[in-house]
Amino acid sequence: MTPTRGYTATKDQLLGRLARIEGQIRGIDGMVRDDRYCIDILTQIGAAQAALDKVALGLLDDHAHHCVVGADTAEERDAKTAEMMAAVGRLMRRG
Amino acid sequence: MTPTRGYTATKDQLLGRLARIEGQIRGIDGMVRDDRYCIDILTQIGAAQAALDKVALGLLDDHAHHCVVGADTAEERDAKTAEMMAAVGRLMRRG
Amino acid sequence: MTPTRGYTATKDQLLGRLARIEGQIRGIDGMVRDDRYCIDILTQIGAAQAALDKVALGLLDDHAHHCVVGADTAEERDAKTAEMMAAVGRLMRRG
Amino acid sequence: MTPTRGYTATKDQLLGRLARIEGQIRGIDGMVRDDRYCIDILTQIGAAQAALDKVALGLLDDHAHHCVVGADTAEERDAKTAEMMAAVGRLMRRG
Repeated sequence: MTPTRGYTATKDQLLGRLARIEGQIRGIDGMVRDDRYCIDILTQIGAAQAALDKVALGLLDDHAHHCVVGADTAEERDAKTAEMMAAVGRLMRRG
Repeated sequence: MTPTRGYTATKDQLLGRLARIEGQIRGIDGMVRDDRYCIDILTQIGAAQAALDKVALGLLDDHAHHCVVGADTAEERDAKTAEMMAAVGRLMRRG
Repeated sequence: MTPTRGYTATKDQLLGRLARIEGQIRGIDGMVRDDRYCIDILTQIGAAQAALDKVALGLLDDHAHHCVVGADTAEERDAKTAEMMAAVGRLMRRG
Repeated sequence: MTPTRGYTATKDQLLGRLARIEGQIRGIDGMVRDDRYCIDILTQIGAAQAALDKVALGLLDDHAHHCVVGADTAEERDAKTAEMMAAVGRLMRRG
């Protein structure tokens, strides 16, 4: 049985998501330019944030599977784990 | 004494921020393409998220000052306030 | 037609939620004490965070409806709106 | 050189933090009961959320160092990593 790896993404998938997010940001730019109703713009910002979260989780998943698990020594593994935790802490607090 | 309006932004300021965020997303795309270290990419994603939060807060502030406070009737004010709260709830949970 | 006021809560409802959150925190304390599986503890922490978010949204909703909308002067309204936006900004970034 | 392990916490430290969070929740309960100014109550909720985040990061750090890194087989390691990522995803979206 293969364990569920819900956030795992290939490089192509990540690039595809980023291209879509770029489109979302351009769409938000157009909505602001056209004085669209602010609540509708906020909904689009929320969607872009959720899409960025998913890219972040994909990268974290990759770090966990390759950098942490694949570390050569216990010390390197500890260092990679600490870096990952710091990144999680920053993401929870958003930048 | 003018009250502090920390999140207030003009349309031009919002458009300037969105242009910068578009640049940040393109930068993240380039980092993924170049197989840059994932923790460094995550730092840039956090920065883009924080910048999007700031645009969202600017739009919310505008909604609060114009749509809520400027509503013509008590009912419209209540409806605009409810819409604002729903938007805040979605942003706290990210889309 | 009454507008939807999804986050509106009475004082009794807020106190009831806080009593439940206190119980959740005590439950998490017991789980840590009993060395329960950390992922299960994290699920309970997530539930307590979501419950606290709901209390925060209830208080914000009250502020928006009473302090902002009910302000006597335009200046007071502006000041109350600025306070509300600062509180939303802090909540999005979590304290 | 010991790597920085910023979120690492002993069981006693986690229990100490949870006891303080319980006190914070009781304080918030008292503020609601006494009809204190809602913006001040929101500040305390933000502080309790930040403290809960820190407990969550401490538990995640423990999971990463012990369950993930200490897994006996590659499959178990993959499963533990997937569980960790799912927990991070839930925390970023709060419960």
